[in-house]
Amino acid sequence: MRNVTEDNITDTFLGYFGKDTDPRVREIMDSLARHLHAFARETRLTHDEWRAGLELLRETGRITTPQRDEFVLLSDVLGLSSLVDMIHSPEVGTSSSVLGPFHVSNPPEYPMGADLRGDFGGDIVLVSGRVLDTEGNGIPAATLDIWQTAPNGLYASQDPDQDEFSFHAKFTADNDGSYRFTTVKPVPYTVPTDGPVGKILNATGRHPWRPSHLHYIVEAAGFTPLVTEVFPNDDEYLDQDTVFGVRDDLVMRYESQPAGSFPAEGLELSGKVDGPWEQVDFDIILVRQ
Amino acid sequence: MRNVTEDNITDTFLGYFGKDTDPRVREIMDSLARHLHAFARETRLTHDEWRAGLELLRETGRITTPQRDEFVLLSDVLGLSSLVDMIHSPEVGTSSSVLGPFHVSNPPEYPMGADLRGDFGGDIVLVSGRVLDTEGNGIPAATLDIWQTAPNGLYASQDPDQDEFSFHAKFTADNDGSYRFTTVKPVPYTVPTDGPVGKILNATGRHPWRPSHLHYIVEAAGFTPLVTEVFPNDDEYLDQDTVFGVRDDLVMRYESQPAGSFPAEGLELSGKVDGPWEQVDFDIILVRQ
Repeated sequence: MRNVTEDNITDTFLGYFGKDTDPRVREIMDSLARHLHAFARETRLTHDEWRAGLELLRETGRITTPQRDEFVLLSDVLGLSSLVDMIHSPEVGTSSSVLGPFHVSNPPEYPMGADLRGDFGGDIVLVSGRVLDTEGNGIPAATLDIWQTAPNGLYASQDPDQDEFSFHAKFTADNDGSYRFTTVKPVPYTVPTDGPVGKILNATGRHPWRPSHLHYIVEAAGFTPLVTEVFPNDDEYLDQDTVFGVRDDLVMRYESQPAGSFPAEGLELSGKVDGPWEQVDFDIILVRQ
Repeated sequence: MRNVTEDNITDTFLGYFGKDTDPRVREIMDSLARHLHAFARETRLTHDEWRAGLELLRETGRITTPQRDEFVLLSDVLGLSSLVDMIHSPEVGTSSSVLGPFHVSNPPEYPMGADLRGDFGGDIVLVSGRVLDTEGNGIPAATLDIWQTAPNGLYASQDPDQDEFSFHAKFTADNDGSYRFTTVKPVPYTVPTDGPVGKILNATGRHPWRPSHLHYIVEAAGFTPLVTEVFPNDDEYLDQDTVFGVRDDLVMRYESQPAGSFPAEGLELSGKVDGPWEQVDFDIILVRQ
């Protein structure tokens, strides 16, 4: 196309593709160009705004390290990460939710009933439930990869005062799919705001808070792996998670339990908890592959 | 919004904006989110594709330096840069075209009629024309910032064998708006393909070539500055510029001139060119602010 115009540039772009272009690549680039061009046309994007957008991407690149991925965070606060999750979330079974940037590979494997709190303060929470198939049968030997923030709101990878795998653990479910462990109640926390994502949140009058949550990756042979989170139903940020991760079926009630009622066996802390404690049950339904 | 879904996430995103958000920021982020989300929904973007897209942006960040801006190049080959140009191109007057990543600030100022070829080989081209207002009157003292590749297809900033300002010059037009200088005919060249942009071109079966061109920035008091390019009408890439910069009114004819006909005065090379040479005329029409 010799005389490229505002009206024909999108078709011109698509016309440049080679005949042998992979159909999926063509589909994605077609949609990307149509939406990118429509965005510029709709907003009558100015050169100054275009330059500001490119500078925001350059800054995102400069602040990104293997430990801190600002591009993932940008995708998170724009809702893209959650949208991709939801597009591929099973129609039956437990909803998936964002992986987030704080998962660590190869967490330590603990025996069922282990305690994650260790020397940290905070009320004891007993987390338990079952890993089930869509007919309600327990899935034996499902694995649960669990992680959360410490009571200070920081993940181990963000906090030099924590051990590498603090509040990260892997469990293997019982033969009936049941699991249980003790920890502390997670707390709400803010996503990092000292980079470009903070500028976007600030410019749009948004807060950086996520409601408190426990992360799960649940896997079992023959089932689609599930990446999800569970939220307490009394968290003040449930209706305004800055990364859009909350789903109705992931909100659970933490029940206060009286002093003296902690289970006498089956848990690492059995016999060691005298005061009140909390309990949350979260059953996970996996979908057969 | 507690139960975020594929269908409500875009409205949820927009609902998070603060009441005091600048209206233009709101307009841009609204359009950006609607198109980004629609892109993911339309393509049913997978987690693997999402990860590949983020890795492409990370790579773009890693390869970008003050001398090489891969984000600008990405915008160029996606047609966004040209689209922003065209949205703001005057309806009357000469079309604008992409600035590109190779402009250098503060080029040397040369007297009218100067030669840019210096010791480089290649046929002499006399470039001349007038800077005019929309009524056809010459604009006195307009400035012309000119740059191009050397005969090897490289800009000075890409080529350690060239001086810093090789083939970069600034001229001040005569009182009637006329200008003239000698140089060599520019050559087609490829945009850099050793980064993420090269991967995109390769995946979509596109070549990396730009048709040959001379870059202009033309400025005069009281007129909107013009960033543009002029292309020779016999270039093989005119219909498929990989950055979408060609406009009908920017394509000019290079006329071959016989030996012995080079102007006897008014040019640095007057009296020094015995053989055949080429001439191109390019009048530039600026729009009053």
